[in-house]
Amino acid sequence: MVPSEIRALFAVASRPEVVSLAGGMPYVSALPLDEFGGMVGDLIARNGAQALQYASAQGDPRLREQICEVMALEGVQACADDVVVTVGAQQALDLITRIFVNPGDVVLAEGPSYVGALGTFASYEAHVVHVAMDENGLIPEALEDTLARLRREGRTVKFLYTVPTFQNPAGVTLSADRRTRLLELAAEYDILVVEDNPYGLLGFEGEPMRALRADDSERVIYLGTFSKTIASGLRVGWALAPHAVRAKLVLAAESAVLCHSSFSQLAVREYLSTQPWREQIKEFRQLYRERRDAMLDALETLMPEGCSWTRPAGGFFVWLTLPDGLDAKAMAPRAIAERVAYVPGTGFYADGNGRRDMRISYCYPEPDRIREGVRRLAGVIEGELRTRDTFGGVGHRGSSGVDTPGPEVV
Amino acid sequence: MVPSEIRALFAVASRPEVVSLAGGMPYVSALPLDEFGGMVGDLIARNGAQALQYASAQGDPRLREQICEVMALEGVQACADDVVVTVGAQQALDLITRIFVNPGDVVLAEGPSYVGALGTFASYEAHVVHVAMDENGLIPEALEDTLARLRREGRTVKFLYTVPTFQNPAGVTLSADRRTRLLELAAEYDILVVEDNPYGLLGFEGEPMRALRADDSERVIYLGTFSKTIASGLRVGWALAPHAVRAKLVLAAESAVLCHSSFSQLAVREYLSTQPWREQIKEFRQLYRERRDAMLDALETLMPEGCSWTRPAGGFFVWLTLPDGLDAKAMAPRAIAERVAYVPGTGFYADGNGRRDMRISYCYPEPDRIREGVRRLAGVIEGELRTRDTFGGVGHRGSSGVDTPGPEVV
Repeated sequence: MVPSEIRALFAVASRPEVVSLAGGMPYVSALPLDEFGGMVGDLIARNGAQALQYASAQGDPRLREQICEVMALEGVQACADDVVVTVGAQQALDLITRIFVNPGDVVLAEGPSYVGALGTFASYEAHVVHVAMDENGLIPEALEDTLARLRREGRTVKFLYTVPTFQNPAGVTLSADRRTRLLELAAEYDILVVEDNPYGLLGFEGEPMRALRADDSERVIYLGTFSKTIASGLRVGWALAPHAVRAKLVLAAESAVLCHSSFSQLAVREYLSTQPWREQIKEFRQLYRERRDAMLDALETLMPEGCSWTRPAGGFFVWLTLPDGLDAKAMAPRAIAERVAYVPGTGFYADGNGRRDMRISYCYPEPDRIREGVRRLAGVIEGELRTRDTFGGVGHRGSSGVDTPGPEVV
Repeated sequence: MVPSEIRALFAVASRPEVVSLAGGMPYVSALPLDEFGGMVGDLIARNGAQALQYASAQGDPRLREQICEVMALEGVQACADDVVVTVGAQQALDLITRIFVNPGDVVLAEGPSYVGALGTFASYEAHVVHVAMDENGLIPEALEDTLARLRREGRTVKFLYTVPTFQNPAGVTLSADRRTRLLELAAEYDILVVEDNPYGLLGFEGEPMRALRADDSERVIYLGTFSKTIASGLRVGWALAPHAVRAKLVLAAESAVLCHSSFSQLAVREYLSTQPWREQIKEFRQLYRERRDAMLDALETLMPEGCSWTRPAGGFFVWLTLPDGLDAKAMAPRAIAERVAYVPGTGFYADGNGRRDMRISYCYPEPDRIREGVRRLAGVIEGELRTRDTFGGVGHRGSSGVDTPGPEVV
């Protein structure tokens, strides 16, 4: 296991003078907290004997039915018996890796990919091979080339891990025709697909994208969470898996935590039963769209020439690439000194790539703070460019930051 | 991983006509549910932005301080920085096993031992070696013999897992002088001790026992939980570990679940800050003592000759040994038919022992139901004894139940 950059983020994000574009925290203050509190209070008073007691390892049966109703919004037809409730989607990812991966097995993932997934894969000694993306998500030809090469090399590929919609960290979305092709390749090369979809319902335009799982129930394991659509502090996620995998997941979950919290599960069940959750998701979408717009506008206005970035249609994240010769990791301490935080791109690669890249997120700060953060970031980048142009490159300075603990690993 | 007997228990325990002496569920209905609900409702309304947000991987800092105050009741002096909050003590056990155990390594455990621990050890392919117990807990001479034998055999012993106080499943408690000897042996053979102490504050007489961790902070990893002293549905447990182990535990926890639920953690924090938790524990002790008395009285009055059982001074469980020639696992379906459930002893051994034994728990049913359950159980045992005396042994019938799924694995 490698020291986590996420923990360091929490420390930085909590310093009030810093505009943090680093964290992926949802803006839970947008929830009607009085109503939520009243709902939970009533639940305990009325049904505390269940809400405060052990639960089954698979998760509350009624909640698993509601989870199927939520997934139906993305075209997924599923049976509650194939759902396992987990401690966030992170636990589902951990258990799936535990079940499938032996040390040295290959796991495919987009490059860049979710930092928490890479940490889990590393902890089971998986060998992560990245597959290139562009603005339409993972590139099928790159996937096919990679699969063919690994087959020639006799490597065992256990699964493809993908965040197809409003990807973390890149903010891009896999197009519909690529989804079809991805599933064809998975079948041709006989690999599982782990579809991690925390942001699927947080699109800014039109209807939700159709999930990969909607078109393949035998080869796709779908991971979902209420962390972004209700509240991350409840830690209620789930896996929807083919039946044989589901049975193993339940045993693994039981071994890992005995059972999930009834308290959290029943709070979600109650929320979905009694509160206008679809309207609340619309409010979240509106809120995040305004913040996305604030960030893209500020980037357009303020960023020096040579920077490029993605334009997310949903979710929380923009992926920004610095001009040639700049190093996002080496620059991070100087950004902190200028009171703006981001996550250097190297954290999202298992292979050392991403030095020119960073993730900047718009989910948590208010629009004015986002603009201020981008302004500060643009100033830092301009300073780096002046240094580069004066001294002919800052790459060497950058490398000194690699092994030094502290703010630069944010 | 093996199919779990715990899950089957939940199914049986929920059938109203069955008196379940099987489950280890605390009687959470004894909590003041209205007050608990009001407290949680206020917490969300007032501090929902934190209670519904991601937490740190190590756990809430104030809660970790409170955990140290709770452990001080057992003589433990600890610093909040060495505490990691986990999803029940089960997760702590899982993470410790993940960190320390390679396939084939030896883990020592009392015989019998907690079924959830054995499941976790099996999932990491540990080789469990049991150490004998008597009415004063683990026998130091047996531990020394086992350690010496394993050393001669060149086996790697990673740790001793022990539930020293009001043990699950045997209900016995390690005496003070044996605690000293156990720590001496651990030092002599250079092994870690994992002290699992869910029931330590639920003694029926006098002051809490001094924890093993109170006398050795370098070699003992202490696991605690609020599942029995507050509510199991919150899934808030913890590990107190030497500093180097603690750092690894935080990384492992982050990889496994990202972070624990703020919602649960802050509910516990609030409960410990605002509610009379010491008095509530006294009420739990009084309640469980009455139930223990009801069970021991009924056993004394009703059990046929040849049965023996332990007399717990705290906790939830009695360990009952059947007369020679009887088989608790084979008998289980007949007990279910007579509307009483228990856990056959084999589930608490990794080596097939325990066929004459069973765990019967008094934590959840009310005293009249406990007496009725023991009455039914005595009737079943009497029937088995008549069969044995007529046909000269029921061992062969028993063996047919081993591999059959269904109620007999309860």
